[in-house]
Amino acid sequence: MRIILCGFGVVAQSLAKLLESRTSDLYSKYGMKPRIVGVFDSKGCAYDNSGLDLKKLVNVKKEFGSVRAYDKSQKIISGLDMIHNLDADVLIETTASNYKDAEPGMSHIITAMKKGLHVISVNKGPLALAFPSLMELATYNQVLLRFSGTVGGGTPILDYAKNSLRGERIISFQGILNGTTNYILTNMAKGLSFNDALSDAKNKGYVEADESLDLDGLDAAAKLVILANWIMGLKVTMKDIEKIGIRKLTSKDIDDAAKKSCSVKLIASCNDKLVVSPIEIKNDDPLCVDGTLNAISFTSEHSGTQTIIGRGAGGIETASSILRDLLDIRKEISKT
Amino acid sequence: MRIILCGFGVVAQSLAKLLESRTSDLYSKYGMKPRIVGVFDSKGCAYDNSGLDLKKLVNVKKEFGSVRAYDKSQKIISGLDMIHNLDADVLIETTASNYKDAEPGMSHIITAMKKGLHVISVNKGPLALAFPSLMELATYNQVLLRFSGTVGGGTPILDYAKNSLRGERIISFQGILNGTTNYILTNMAKGLSFNDALSDAKNKGYVEADESLDLDGLDAAAKLVILANWIMGLKVTMKDIEKIGIRKLTSKDIDDAAKKSCSVKLIASCNDKLVVSPIEIKNDDPLCVDGTLNAISFTSEHSGTQTIIGRGAGGIETASSILRDLLDIRKEISKT
Repeated sequence: MRIILCGFGVVAQSLAKLLESRTSDLYSKYGMKPRIVGVFDSKGCAYDNSGLDLKKLVNVKKEFGSVRAYDKSQKIISGLDMIHNLDADVLIETTASNYKDAEPGMSHIITAMKKGLHVISVNKGPLALAFPSLMELATYNQVLLRFSGTVGGGTPILDYAKNSLRGERIISFQGILNGTTNYILTNMAKGLSFNDALSDAKNKGYVEADESLDLDGLDAAAKLVILANWIMGLKVTMKDIEKIGIRKLTSKDIDDAAKKSCSVKLIASCNDKLVVSPIEIKNDDPLCVDGTLNAISFTSEHSGTQTIIGRGAGGIETASSILRDLLDIRKEISKT
Repeated sequence: MRIILCGFGVVAQSLAKLLESRTSDLYSKYGMKPRIVGVFDSKGCAYDNSGLDLKKLVNVKKEFGSVRAYDKSQKIISGLDMIHNLDADVLIETTASNYKDAEPGMSHIITAMKKGLHVISVNKGPLALAFPSLMELATYNQVLLRFSGTVGGGTPILDYAKNSLRGERIISFQGILNGTTNYILTNMAKGLSFNDALSDAKNKGYVEADESLDLDGLDAAAKLVILANWIMGLKVTMKDIEKIGIRKLTSKDIDDAAKKSCSVKLIASCNDKLVVSPIEIKNDDPLCVDGTLNAISFTSEHSGTQTIIGRGAGGIETASSILRDLLDIRKEISKT
């Protein structure tokens, strides 16, 4: 399985390490031999038709800040050129999300699918802005588009709802889908002001470079778009989500909730409407988790309400979700 | 798909209603046309090669207390005779669990598999006493043995761990697997004595006819056996589980835990050892759920700890798990 990797940040590096450490296990257990034939970051690229040395790749990135240093004799080509010119089976898109035009991820994904590559995206931007049309494009080009890592990080929320609950009808769901705001709200409940809680989250490296993605509910809304499309079969994009962030919450709001044995959480919900908004939930509701945890409750027709809780992010967790998608693609390919 | 149903208690009746209500949906969505060709309870049986009328079946059971009244002109035959003589594809075993010899369920399952029927069991007894050999028998006879409803009721815990986490290594797990004891412990935390909490649970119909199954941890241990075999690949049976029930717990134990911001829960755990025992867990641990809820936390190599919470029992929930198993069997059959 020949892979092009877009971006080489924390998640992609974790993936490289994971593939490296599990080479023999993946081959013996699943018959899968993944090879990364091309990778690029913002400063350059590295490619090798017979597969890049993953250990070396991680080391040069660490030492020189770019994969460019892998082999300086190589001509620098753009990501799109790499997709056009390298012989590959799968594209893994890990560049940063943005919700304006979702570039460069959007172009990577579209170009790859048109060229017949299967795509795994952990970049939420393209999916949030164009889920329905990207799925259509995948179908049209007879390729698979997977994105397990976009919601819940290493916690297989999408897979659970789609596969483990097969035969069931999910009626509605609601969840805490953004760990950063949950961390801030948890600290506000412990007595910190919004600003102090935000500073603390920033110091810990939990807040996105563009803090609006967390604080204004954009990240949670993007995940809601993906869940609504994938699980509920809706055809919606970012503009269909009503978004209210947590910037206006005061310590008084938190205290008022506490008096009612409740906590204020930023909840993404899919019921009659698609909404991201801070709401009060009961402290003994399984959904009411603290810290950076994510949680989602699915209400189904016959099996009642089921809640999944897990860490929502992290390089190695998200890398493990990419590996699941790779195994999934490998399984689907081997059927045909 | 031709089905023989062993037992016609709450779960089996819920299944009959579920199949009845979803006939057209199951056919259009999954191409599945399940027909129950034979059913028996402790007082008699009913059978029809072209499929029993499920509405009538539920009604006669309600009115006369046995499926025998469905057609009194029919000769009464034993469950085993029915398995031998009826033409069927799947056996669904729903008779009561016992952990002495697991009969009559054990004989139903073995006979059916030897005859080439796929088996769905929501009866934990046979699996708890003989999981490894039953799986071997299934493999030998090239039939499928499914048991989603034995752990977590309608919450697809087994499926989640096996399928949604594919590609991951689960290192250990621990869970609250018995809703009745959890209900009793929750009420003890609210100030009730053990005896009062037990009486209350009995009044609500939560306690098994043989209360030892709940109170001495046998039910939780049976589920632990199933999880350990299915998910961790261990070859264990009931005798390999160390079991300590909740009978000896006092209000003081509960209060001592509360002082440490902990709750006493009956935890089934798979780590170095397989143990069912009351232990103190932190109140902010996602696993710490109250009432009749079940919860299980899987610790995996790369994706951290993930917790699933849901109702653990109930007729309709368990029936929905049987339906999932049926769909699974149907899917596997159609591959060949």
